[in-house]
Amino acid sequence: MTRETYSLLENYMLSCMDDSAHDREHVYRVLYYALEIAATLKDVDYSVLIAACLLHDIGRKEQFEDPSLCHAAVGSEKAFSFLMEHGFSKEYAERVRQCIMTHRYRENNPPQTLEAKILFDADKLDVTGAMGIARTLIYKGIVSEPLYSLLPDGTVSDGEGDDAPSFFQEYKYKLEHLYNRFYTEKAASLAKERRQAAMDFYNCLYREAASAYGEGRNALAGLLTDS
Amino acid sequence: MTRETYSLLENYMLSCMDDSAHDREHVYRVLYYALEIAATLKDVDYSVLIAACLLHDIGRKEQFEDPSLCHAAVGSEKAFSFLMEHGFSKEYAERVRQCIMTHRYRENNPPQTLEAKILFDADKLDVTGAMGIARTLIYKGIVSEPLYSLLPDGTVSDGEGDDAPSFFQEYKYKLEHLYNRFYTEKAASLAKERRQAAMDFYNCLYREAASAYGEGRNALAGLLTDS
Repeated sequence: MTRETYSLLENYMLSCMDDSAHDREHVYRVLYYALEIAATLKDVDYSVLIAACLLHDIGRKEQFEDPSLCHAAVGSEKAFSFLMEHGFSKEYAERVRQCIMTHRYRENNPPQTLEAKILFDADKLDVTGAMGIARTLIYKGIVSEPLYSLLPDGTVSDGEGDDAPSFFQEYKYKLEHLYNRFYTEKAASLAKERRQAAMDFYNCLYREAASAYGEGRNALAGLLTDS
Repeated sequence: MTRETYSLLENYMLSCMDDSAHDREHVYRVLYYALEIAATLKDVDYSVLIAACLLHDIGRKEQFEDPSLCHAAVGSEKAFSFLMEHGFSKEYAERVRQCIMTHRYRENNPPQTLEAKILFDADKLDVTGAMGIARTLIYKGIVSEPLYSLLPDGTVSDGEGDDAPSFFQEYKYKLEHLYNRFYTEKAASLAKERRQAAMDFYNCLYREAASAYGEGRNALAGLLTDS
């Protein structure tokens, strides 16, 4: 890929991301992970891969404003139109579109091409480890969801089986189960290295919260009187 | 304290916190930590302490809407007025006000009474450990600040010496330096137990981010051509 093409795509990505300080750094991390994964594989088309990484989340704003939209579907169409408007071949624009369309975890829409699988893995890698924890917590702040829910007896739920959204719920439903869902060996091995940091953090946070409620509620009950 | 008084104060606290799903759970944790600290000390006035804990952050909304206001100053006046309006003695309302006024870390306004020192320590404890990390990340999401800044050479800054606000900057400026600022031995010892979790998380997150940018940017440079 030429520097000129890279700048064109990068600037378009940045223009789609101007609503949040975080998303653009996620895009660069995904690009860098993808290149690290690609270095272990043969016959990668880097022009397709780099474009797909840069543009994979350009439909986020539309999904945020209207949650019935899927950012992968919106973003893949935006990327296709942008590339066609700027004189790239239809075959190239189609291959980039295909990668973006399948980068989200959906059972009925798995990535088909080598570049699509690399993008998928690179994007999922950014939900593993300490980075996955940090991004999830930042997102909980953006959408005003709490760290945890309380059980009917007033103690802290660990998230398992929770209906109400919270950080612990998302950890139990999603973050804990990512690690065997990679297409490439390199991504699976990078994810494995990062796994312990996420588990340690969740366990410490749960212990801190649970012990405060456990001991504190008992102490409070002993201090309150009927009259 | 009677159950009736507790409910009165709790409901007033909840009515002041309706803008965020997180703040009320912080209030309960602070109350529970405070009772754990108080159990190691003599002559604690629990009526003052419980009221001060429940009401310590009721000025947060005003500060969020107008950052020139200090939530400790606003909250202490709101608490004083509320207690006077509900028939508590002026001496009691004054002691609660004093605790709330000095619970924020400010060099020129240190806590004076035993109950004020306990509230101060309990509130700071909730910024230590994994909980401090989680709350800071959620806050970064609320105010749209990023995880890290990039240095002029394009690598990830560890936060030290940064001017721009970010999670790493706040870790280096604030979270790292909390641990020797407690008034009570119990709080210092609880904070010490929680310290490693915060350090481990910061170190893992920095390593994950820095290694992506380090390797990825080199790989990208090798793939881009002039024409």
